[in-house]
Amino acid sequence: MATPVKVYGPPVSTAVSRVLACLLEKEVPYQLIPVNMSKGEHKMPEYLKIQPFGQVPAFEDEDISLFESRSICRYICEKYAKQGNKDLYGDGDNPLVKASIDQWLEAEGQSFSPPSSVLVFQLAFAPRMKLKQDQGAIRQNEEKLKKVLDVYEQRLGESQFLAGDKFTLADLSHLPNAHYLVNATDMGELFTSRENVGRWWSEISSRDSWVKVVGMQETA
Amino acid sequence: MATPVKVYGPPVSTAVSRVLACLLEKEVPYQLIPVNMSKGEHKMPEYLKIQPFGQVPAFEDEDISLFESRSICRYICEKYAKQGNKDLYGDGDNPLVKASIDQWLEAEGQSFSPPSSVLVFQLAFAPRMKLKQDQGAIRQNEEKLKKVLDVYEQRLGESQFLAGDKFTLADLSHLPNAHYLVNATDMGELFTSRENVGRWWSEISSRDSWVKVVGMQETA
Ligand SMILES: N[C@@H](CCC(=O)N[C@@H](CS)C(=O)NCC(=O)O)C(=O)O
Ligand SMILES: N[C@@H](CCC(=O)N[C@@H](CS)C(=O)NCC(=O)O)C(=O)O
Repeated sequence: MATPVKVYGPPVSTAVSRVLACLLEKEVPYQLIPVNMSKGEHKMPEYLKIQPFGQVPAFEDEDISLFESRSICRYICEKYAKQGNKDLYGDGDNPLVKASIDQWLEAEGQSFSPPSSVLVFQLAFAPRMKLKQDQGAIRQNEEKLKKVLDVYEQRLGESQFLAGDKFTLADLSHLPNAHYLVNATDMGELFTSRENVGRWWSEISSRDSWVKVVGMQETA
Repeated sequence: MATPVKVYGPPVSTAVSRVLACLLEKEVPYQLIPVNMSKGEHKMPEYLKIQPFGQVPAFEDEDISLFESRSICRYICEKYAKQGNKDLYGDGDNPLVKASIDQWLEAEGQSFSPPSSVLVFQLAFAPRMKLKQDQGAIRQNEEKLKKVLDVYEQRLGESQFLAGDKFTLADLSHLPNAHYLVNATDMGELFTSRENVGRWWSEISSRDSWVKVVGMQETA
């Protein structure tokens, strides 16, 4: 049996959970290696060798070590193309499908993630960490997120998923931040009040892979 | 002769110039289609059909229309794999090289671009547009950018370019913002004072492709 790939970091981290969801979709065996962030283990010299920015996740597979959750996901889909969900990053035969997935994956990283991450941090994590919330940042990023979701609403009226009629990496990449926004903040309505976004969200968040990741987050 | 691909948007835009540099490296004939942003043409219904976020660039090639500059670059490299600079996104035979390029391209999009874009806007564009500068944002993003460049300094001490010993899409993607920071703000020292980053910057910014893009920006 092949050695499992290694993922460093806690499943409660959005970027770590993105990689876990991808591994589960692709049925790739993995080993989760704890990084104690409250003890600052992600800033230790040993860890910085594999993740120089001092963030989670880091990833290892045979002779490669990688960081950046979306690049790790792309790598997993390319390397394990023939197993698990074969539509996740296109089937390799149609470059147009892959380009469309990549475009919406990039839109997630560039347009959806920045305001979502701020809102998740400010509304879900800051109170638990007893940090003062920045109301200006909350208002500003709520406005930005609304505009992004308006674009999604229209897109998801034309196709079932972001990149077409199949669930792909582009949809998957939204799960971590959207999950916290819907379940741990008062911003859930931004999703559920939009007809197509709401339909899409129920569909993608109920996938077995993601339900498992949420289970891991809750037992952590 | 094949129909040239179409790029919508002005070369002064950092995201447009990223795509132009890629097309020149790959020797792909293109047609540049003006979008008059001061007249709000990027928010018109016709344009929103190809770029739903109302940003530049948009891109068309035969039967595909794409947005997101980094995804457009990935697509160009895949589709035109056999022409121009064949190392730009790996040679297709070694998935580890491609994964490393993708990782540093993603680091550019996630870590380098956010603080750089704010600094370029605040220091180079806001004064021309007679907008008040946000000193808090400038200080905060200068700190963020320094940390990123410290990581690059170490990385570029180990290898000539970000993803290894060849110039790739990962390096190219830094050109647009770094160019304005070095040439149109007082932040150039952040690059030139770091030995390896400075050496890398002279090397990548003097490539023919980029020199041509800068020429297009200057005549615009
Ligand atoms: N763009 C990176 C972001 C990684 C990231 O921001 N990780 C957070 C946890 S979700 C982290 O490690 N934060 C600690 C820090 O930045 O010091 C990726 O997608 O992998
Ligand atoms: N992530 C996008 C960013 C595009 C972008 O921000 N374009 C700017 C010009 S560099 C723009 O169109 N700004 C106008 C606006 O956002 O309304 C990409 O890389 O293509």
